[in-house]
Amino acid sequence: MRIDVLTLFPEMFTGVFNASILGKAQDKGIVSLSTVNFRDFSGNKHNTVDDTPYGGGGGMVLKAEPIFGAVEHLLAIKAEQEIEGDTGESEGQKKPRIILMCPQGTPFNQGIAKELSGESHLIFICGHYEGYDERIRDHLITDELSVGDYVLTGGELPAMVVIDAVARLLPGVLGNDQSAITDSFSDGLLEYPHYTRPAEFRGWKVPDALLSGHHAEIVKWRRRESLKRTWERRPDLLEQAELTPEERKWLMTQRNALKD
Amino acid sequence: MRIDVLTLFPEMFTGVFNASILGKAQDKGIVSLSTVNFRDFSGNKHNTVDDTPYGGGGGMVLKAEPIFGAVEHLLAIKAEQEIEGDTGESEGQKKPRIILMCPQGTPFNQGIAKELSGESHLIFICGHYEGYDERIRDHLITDELSVGDYVLTGGELPAMVVIDAVARLLPGVLGNDQSAITDSFSDGLLEYPHYTRPAEFRGWKVPDALLSGHHAEIVKWRRRESLKRTWERRPDLLEQAELTPEERKWLMTQRNALKD
Repeated sequence: MRIDVLTLFPEMFTGVFNASILGKAQDKGIVSLSTVNFRDFSGNKHNTVDDTPYGGGGGMVLKAEPIFGAVEHLLAIKAEQEIEGDTGESEGQKKPRIILMCPQGTPFNQGIAKELSGESHLIFICGHYEGYDERIRDHLITDELSVGDYVLTGGELPAMVVIDAVARLLPGVLGNDQSAITDSFSDGLLEYPHYTRPAEFRGWKVPDALLSGHHAEIVKWRRRESLKRTWERRPDLLEQAELTPEERKWLMTQRNALKD
Repeated sequence: MRIDVLTLFPEMFTGVFNASILGKAQDKGIVSLSTVNFRDFSGNKHNTVDDTPYGGGGGMVLKAEPIFGAVEHLLAIKAEQEIEGDTGESEGQKKPRIILMCPQGTPFNQGIAKELSGESHLIFICGHYEGYDERIRDHLITDELSVGDYVLTGGELPAMVVIDAVARLLPGVLGNDQSAITDSFSDGLLEYPHYTRPAEFRGWKVPDALLSGHHAEIVKWRRRESLKRTWERRPDLLEQAELTPEERKWLMTQRNALKD
């Protein structure tokens, strides 16, 4: 998978792209990550990429020109590579997803991460300032994503979040194939509590069930803790989760016990 | 405000901490950002910080010892500095918030960002691997935060997200004091569309209302676009937003017009 990021702050990405899973994914040749500074496509001699908003008000607005210019440059390179390579693979001819990171976007979730992990080329646009010229939204991009309901300085951190979530789903990226599966949200529930050595730390002990060695008992304990935690912290997730009738009944008894 | 981050990947933070708003906030002396590699507090000669989970299963679990050790080290330094300084300020004596970044945490939002911006010291714990030893959760931390319902490789990117959202709310960090106020979510609605020069780009024109020069008309257009966008994309936000009876009525007519 090829991932390009349009940003005015390419240096923000260096540490993140080279560390941990993203670094390994690149070393293995599974992902290719690049940044493009769209200031290089300003189209004016002062290299300005922003201007005051029509209609007045505070803040600056990102101009359409540099963003269109940078994306079209990437698409031209891609087209050239395809003519040279002429692989005839349908994957190569697939249009890239052009993703605007902004608070007004579709809330990003694990389902979108999974969907994007099936693409061959993603282009992320990371703005700063007050906002984007609306014509970028209307005529250039394919997607708008938001990582959450909070205000950030720019789209850089959100793009890193999406890239990390997507890259770790690509086959071969995670060493242990199980990890991606058992993580939170993969089954729609929050994770059960984990414990590791020592069995007693400062007087606080690991629950007996986990030390029992009875596989069935451990599975049952974990599933129930997972259900209990989801119910306590994120009851909204329970509506979507697949529960057995027995599990629903058990949750009800827990709920009633707490009321008494 | 002082912010410490416990991580196994301190190099991930360098670019992000030095760029843009966070870099400026440090230069101005408003925020002090540090990372601590908790591998230095492993307490064992092999410097291991993780181990297999009790009860079996894939993945590794972060041990309690290194996390407790690193946090207590930070608290000891703080206590020393306070004795030396002896400022008698209540701020200095306030306990830090110790925040675990994890998918099971409270969903982070702008309200929490605002609350945290009133603190004097934040400590973030960023895990990797399958999870944290539950005793960290039970006996060390004050908060658990999640930035969204997606699976990431570690707590580093989420910590950066929270730090950015919090730091930009501190007085003096943003150059233009308006920016923090007019951004999305500050009034519970999505932002209206922005436009900047040129008035026509590739045949796509800026809406007449914004070019009119009539302040009242511009304010009305923006508010309505903001309402419309929120209604189309995030109707869930409208329930919380403060709308005038006239605005609710106008939204209803829009809704009905679309149905016809």
